Amino acid sequence: MSSALRIVSYGLGPIGLAAARLVSTKSTLQLVGAIDVDPDKVGRDVGELLEQEAIGVSVEADAEAALTRLKPDAVIHCTSSFIPAIVEQLETAARAGVNVVSSSEELLVPDLQHGELAERIDTAAKAGGCSVLGTGVNPGFAMDLAAVIASAVAFDVQSVKCTRVVDAATRRLPLQKKVGAGLTAGEFKKQLATGKFGHIGMRESVALVARGLGFELDDIEQTVEPVIAAEDHKTPFLTVKEGQVAGIRNHGYGRAGQQTLVHLDLAMYVGAPEPRDEIVLDSTPPVHVSFPGGIAGDEATAAMLVNNVHGAVAARPGLVTALDVAPPRLAR
Amino acid sequence: MSSALRIVSYGLGPIGLAAARLVSTKSTLQLVGAIDVDPDKVGRDVGELLEQEAIGVSVEADAEAALTRLKPDAVIHCTSSFIPAIVEQLETAARAGVNVVSSSEELLVPDLQHGELAERIDTAAKAGGCSVLGTGVNPGFAMDLAAVIASAVAFDVQSVKCTRVVDAATRRLPLQKKVGAGLTAGEFKKQLATGKFGHIGMRESVALVARGLGFELDDIEQTVEPVIAAEDHKTPFLTVKEGQVAGIRNHGYGRAGQQTLVHLDLAMYVGAPEPRDEIVLDSTPPVHVSFPGGIAGDEATAAMLVNNVHGAVAARPGLVTALDVAPPRLAR
Repeated sequence: MSSALRIVSYGLGPIGLAAARLVSTKSTLQLVGAIDVDPDKVGRDVGELLEQEAIGVSVEADAEAALTRLKPDAVIHCTSSFIPAIVEQLETAARAGVNVVSSSEELLVPDLQHGELAERIDTAAKAGGCSVLGTGVNPGFAMDLAAVIASAVAFDVQSVKCTRVVDAATRRLPLQKKVGAGLTAGEFKKQLATGKFGHIGMRESVALVARGLGFELDDIEQTVEPVIAAEDHKTPFLTVKEGQVAGIRNHGYGRAGQQTLVHLDLAMYVGAPEPRDEIVLDSTPPVHVSFPGGIAGDEATAAMLVNNVHGAVAARPGLVTALDVAPPRLAR
Repeated sequence: MSSALRIVSYGLGPIGLAAARLVSTKSTLQLVGAIDVDPDKVGRDVGELLEQEAIGVSVEADAEAALTRLKPDAVIHCTSSFIPAIVEQLETAARAGVNVVSSSEELLVPDLQHGELAERIDTAAKAGGCSVLGTGVNPGFAMDLAAVIASAVAFDVQSVKCTRVVDAATRRLPLQKKVGAGLTAGEFKKQLATGKFGHIGMRESVALVARGLGFELDDIEQTVEPVIAAEDHKTPFLTVKEGQVAGIRNHGYGRAGQQTLVHLDLAMYVGAPEPRDEIVLDSTPPVHVSFPGGIAGDEATAAMLVNNVHGAVAARPGLVTALDVAPPRLAR
């Protein structure tokens, strides 16, 4: 690497900050700017937000001004899961000619739910000569990209089953809240109806698997149910009492006619036994991949963002997916 | 896929034939030609060589004439493990502007042992506007690329250990012979001295892991030893008697100073227990990947060749590696 890529962190929530911290440890990447609209963060040094020494990079609220002035090689973008909320942010980056790696779950397969917005982003990125890529660990790797890559050693694949079990007790408080730990079943239902609760991105994972493997689906469906605690569980952050919600069970199905070609089974709850990731391809030859203990969630998401920067910078201009860019791998 | 990619099979040994058979099952690929110098094969229909119905594709001996006339999108190249033996074949393909996916083990990291020849190939490929890619399952996936991709979910990686155990009794005769099954220890030593015996590509696997993870190695070393049968083993093809060689144990080491950063441990012998592939990254967070039962060898190699065609065709012109092209995945 002749010189480090210049990076701006766009969105400084927990994942954005973890990614910024990781960037600061990489010799091939240099954090040169930070963007967030939170008045409690604007003007502060990113090092301070990371509870480290100041690094001379202040948080700015005006993305366009920051990107136009700094002209970074890429932004690491972590502001929202939902494409309608980020389309203008992505267009701003594209107009400035800045490559984007985003944690937006919907951006994994952008045209699945937002065809028109995806076209707008693609047009802007091509005009700006830069790429826009959505990534993460789930969605983005554990239940989708890893299964697609595992298919490389197969002659043919009839169907895919991915199982992910996360013990939410070992995760940060926002994840525990996101899966409803400590709620009553009634509260869980109400939260679920908002559409911003639980795991985001299951449909996108099913779609990425299907596209990666050339399955033509008629239908993508998901189910979400609460897992009720059979006994009390105490986490570092909260206590789930017997009978309360411990977390979620989220299934995703991709079907063609009566056949289920893709089945993704996600369990994230406090006290979940045997945390793991498993990928089983019903294929010739059979392929079985296991991650004993499971892929660490929040840490791995920050890692995927940072480890995709080099690939996104090298990618063709436009709105791209993980199927288009070089395989993600550790950035130094 | 609007129209199928037109493919020529170059080299019709067991792996080349398996790849040709696989191509013939794919709707996005069409076998339009075949090249081999074996007088027993020239002029015969590829379908006949596959013990199937004729498909109207005859084997030709003159690669230049065939590629210039057919102008395929890609060749699947399976003639030799060794770059000096194939450099002119690759230049011929490049002059015809044909992308190459090759099973040559040395081509996985072409400049590792053949810097000048690699430059020649790269120059020819760039001039022809096509890419040349080496791939396979081992080397090419099980002990190298899979470990590199697994690092995508890590903050940092200190070292890598890959273990591959293959029960050679379940593999075809050439593999059993390649690992020395049935030889005496003395015969094994003599064979080993030829440099064309045993597993080819261990150094390339170590190098690909190191490049993929940004390790700067001072030294790549391998050791090869016979595994002696503790009891008689009968395979469908031969019998290994107690005291004879059952197969090989091949270690690869990548070191920086006193530290071993990459350790690849390959056991391929008749009767090897618990066949499997294991990848352990000493990393933050820790990453452990397991393929229970192991990745099928010969089948997976043919699959990797075919499943990399679309990626190679989309890749930038030049001599490329698995680190440069889109992740391999099932071709339809």
